[in-house]
Amino acid sequence: MSKNEIPYKIYLSESELPKSWYNLRADMKNKPAPLLHPGTHQPLKLEELTPIFCEELAKQELDDTTPYIEIPEEIRNFYKMYRPSPLVRAYCLEKQLGTPAKIYYKFEGNNTSGSHKLNSAIAQAYFAKKQGLKGVTTETGAGQWGTALSMACAYFGLDCQVYMVKVSYEQKPFRREVMRTYGAKVTPSPSDTTEVGRKILKEFPGTTGSLGCAISEAVEAATTQEGYRYVLGSVLSQVLLHQSVIGLETMTALDKYGVKPDMIIGCAGGGSNLGGLISPFMGRKLRGEADYQIIAVEPASCPSFTRGVYAYDFCDTGHVCPLAKMYTLGSEFIPSANHAGGLRYHGMSSVLSQLYDDKLIEARAVEQTSVFQAAEQFARIEGILPAPESSHAIRVAIDEALKCKETGEEKTIVFGLTGTGYFDLVAYQKYNDGQMGDYIPTDADLKRGFDAIPRFPGNME
Amino acid sequence: MSKNEIPYKIYLSESELPKSWYNLRADMKNKPAPLLHPGTHQPLKLEELTPIFCEELAKQELDDTTPYIEIPEEIRNFYKMYRPSPLVRAYCLEKQLGTPAKIYYKFEGNNTSGSHKLNSAIAQAYFAKKQGLKGVTTETGAGQWGTALSMACAYFGLDCQVYMVKVSYEQKPFRREVMRTYGAKVTPSPSDTTEVGRKILKEFPGTTGSLGCAISEAVEAATTQEGYRYVLGSVLSQVLLHQSVIGLETMTALDKYGVKPDMIIGCAGGGSNLGGLISPFMGRKLRGEADYQIIAVEPASCPSFTRGVYAYDFCDTGHVCPLAKMYTLGSEFIPSANHAGGLRYHGMSSVLSQLYDDKLIEARAVEQTSVFQAAEQFARIEGILPAPESSHAIRVAIDEALKCKETGEEKTIVFGLTGTGYFDLVAYQKYNDGQMGDYIPTDADLKRGFDAIPRFPGNME
Repeated sequence: MSKNEIPYKIYLSESELPKSWYNLRADMKNKPAPLLHPGTHQPLKLEELTPIFCEELAKQELDDTTPYIEIPEEIRNFYKMYRPSPLVRAYCLEKQLGTPAKIYYKFEGNNTSGSHKLNSAIAQAYFAKKQGLKGVTTETGAGQWGTALSMACAYFGLDCQVYMVKVSYEQKPFRREVMRTYGAKVTPSPSDTTEVGRKILKEFPGTTGSLGCAISEAVEAATTQEGYRYVLGSVLSQVLLHQSVIGLETMTALDKYGVKPDMIIGCAGGGSNLGGLISPFMGRKLRGEADYQIIAVEPASCPSFTRGVYAYDFCDTGHVCPLAKMYTLGSEFIPSANHAGGLRYHGMSSVLSQLYDDKLIEARAVEQTSVFQAAEQFARIEGILPAPESSHAIRVAIDEALKCKETGEEKTIVFGLTGTGYFDLVAYQKYNDGQMGDYIPTDADLKRGFDAIPRFPGNME
Repeated sequence: MSKNEIPYKIYLSESELPKSWYNLRADMKNKPAPLLHPGTHQPLKLEELTPIFCEELAKQELDDTTPYIEIPEEIRNFYKMYRPSPLVRAYCLEKQLGTPAKIYYKFEGNNTSGSHKLNSAIAQAYFAKKQGLKGVTTETGAGQWGTALSMACAYFGLDCQVYMVKVSYEQKPFRREVMRTYGAKVTPSPSDTTEVGRKILKEFPGTTGSLGCAISEAVEAATTQEGYRYVLGSVLSQVLLHQSVIGLETMTALDKYGVKPDMIIGCAGGGSNLGGLISPFMGRKLRGEADYQIIAVEPASCPSFTRGVYAYDFCDTGHVCPLAKMYTLGSEFIPSANHAGGLRYHGMSSVLSQLYDDKLIEARAVEQTSVFQAAEQFARIEGILPAPESSHAIRVAIDEALKCKETGEEKTIVFGLTGTGYFDLVAYQKYNDGQMGDYIPTDADLKRGFDAIPRFPGNME
């Protein structure tokens, strides 16, 4: 098929929607390290996970051998309301850059949650409903995950309790109102509704909260209410499994038009988008069927891959969750207050961490002013106002396309556009006013984070 | 084709994108009344319009005989970035309502401006660019139109000056920042940058502005700067022409699946969405090829169709624009402060007004609490958080589907979902907090508006 026939947007038909998620771990020779019990440092067993997580999701978390896991029909029906998502050929951007590179992006922002998070939220809500639960609890920082989960719970008639970091609850009232419109109960964290919340409030009366604290409250709320479980929107292997729908659609669309990507680029915070986007491509790479250059893009202000260590670490600042082996900056690491976007998690998904350690993917750290420059350029020529997170991938895609302009190489670049920036206008305003700064942590900043990583035989010793 | 084969979302291919706009006026036996000069009360000539409007757009405004007007390729290429827009089968809503009715909606919210306004913005920017202009000026209230025009101007490298009603400028900073990100110059109105602005500021130092005042400033800015023209996002016949792309796509999609709608529903403020959606269907109706029940839905708090008069009236409170014959509440009519959504314009497009007067369309007025109830119900089951404006159509679509449930009729209902409510969360918060009230103007309120309608031979006499 000639290149001229490739439309601006490739929309697969609903019958081409994946029928199974792809579990990349099944094709990995070096499996991601198992979750450990925070007290005993022994791999966690299913029965240790199920008091906190839904049973089916706990099984998915532990399953590193089954390559394809069927997507239940109820989830597929929900997916049909906003999927298959478009794979867009960035014709206008290519023309403006004057590059011989072909640029594609998989756009996950065409749903009310505004991001790819909904792909896993609906799966987690479904399995909770199927288990006969009354509801789920979770935490949210910026609010993307909380919004997605609220939508999913509304659809299945499940109670949804969101602990929202207090400073976000107050400064992002619109995100909060979207969740409320979908029927979620949104509580500013720390709150007096949990023991851990009351304890923190007593100790730090003026605190504006943190993700670590909100996680602790959500976990307590899940384990102390009959018929509730806790759910999480990133980092976990089950989340990457659900997000593989992004990569599967992308691969089907590219295959359909006979396009072979040279390079796949995605932003990486906890890793749910990048992991989902690259999964089936990495599968081909691991099976020796194809090769791709895969680039994880992270903020220079929170550089888990490029400056972190590969070790077992706490997943949360409250230290109530299992230990995960990951590239990490330490659970005490907090990016500078001037860091605008998400991608502020201290660690990276175990699956991606193992792939990075095996040199199967590479990583780049980019500074935020250059990220917003890319966002502005992209918005003006491609029409979509991107989320700051997604714009990290745009930055590197543009950089690579400009390299092709110099070398004359006709590379095919695919990147993940995870979502829209409609709820990130405070950050855009900062950029528009010329007030956006950059920040790169010093070695001393990093050391403080590393010092908080647990020491035990075989870890950080 | 069996009904079961209809997907959740019908996406036309890019080759099915309309190649021409449809000019409904050409098929109307009773043409809409011409625009009049506000001083002489004589029909306006082309040369009287071109100092204010772009030449090609002025021609389109006056053309009531050419049925199809080609969409230039540059505009079609821009359309491809977000069109064809999906026609969605509301399977989930139907199931929840338990109705035998089949419900479809044409969703125009999948672009950064968040609404259908972009369809006309890109056309107007294109013709301005083609005429060799430096830039365009406009006013914006809530900010939807200003955002759309900013995006369109960024794409064609055209200067964009937006006069934003001061109260919105201050209370809707996010809309403002989207426009700035797209490079627009946004000025709170009234401002000291125009003569009329300075005059108003002197007279009313504490004013928070009005749409009428912002129009006056935008028109002055256009006519006093070399290489600038004024553009408008609704009411005008040229805007309805551009918006016919909505109806043409809807018709192609329905025809493709052999679906014959019984009823077409749209919200109506100035009429750009409803006019665009119904145009080709009304064409078939006028030519006797098919029949449809067509329903315009307006807020009970701003009921131009259901309680207005059909007369020549000022288009703006500043009285600088031509007179248009329309169903109107009078240019001095201002809906109650508790009215949340858009749809607050005092008059209705001349095209739609003539059709309504000829009883070819009907109208319903709905109260805002019931509109937000419909919005919430729709969001929770169909996933999309709708704009308050669009939710007027949802309200009546649900009402009609419930009537079918009683009667057992299997009607096919099509409605226009003009956009998303991501920038309307203040209104949603009011609803979530149970603080939303209803307001129906008294006859005395209406009389004050009617009194401001100009009296001259043949008008209001």
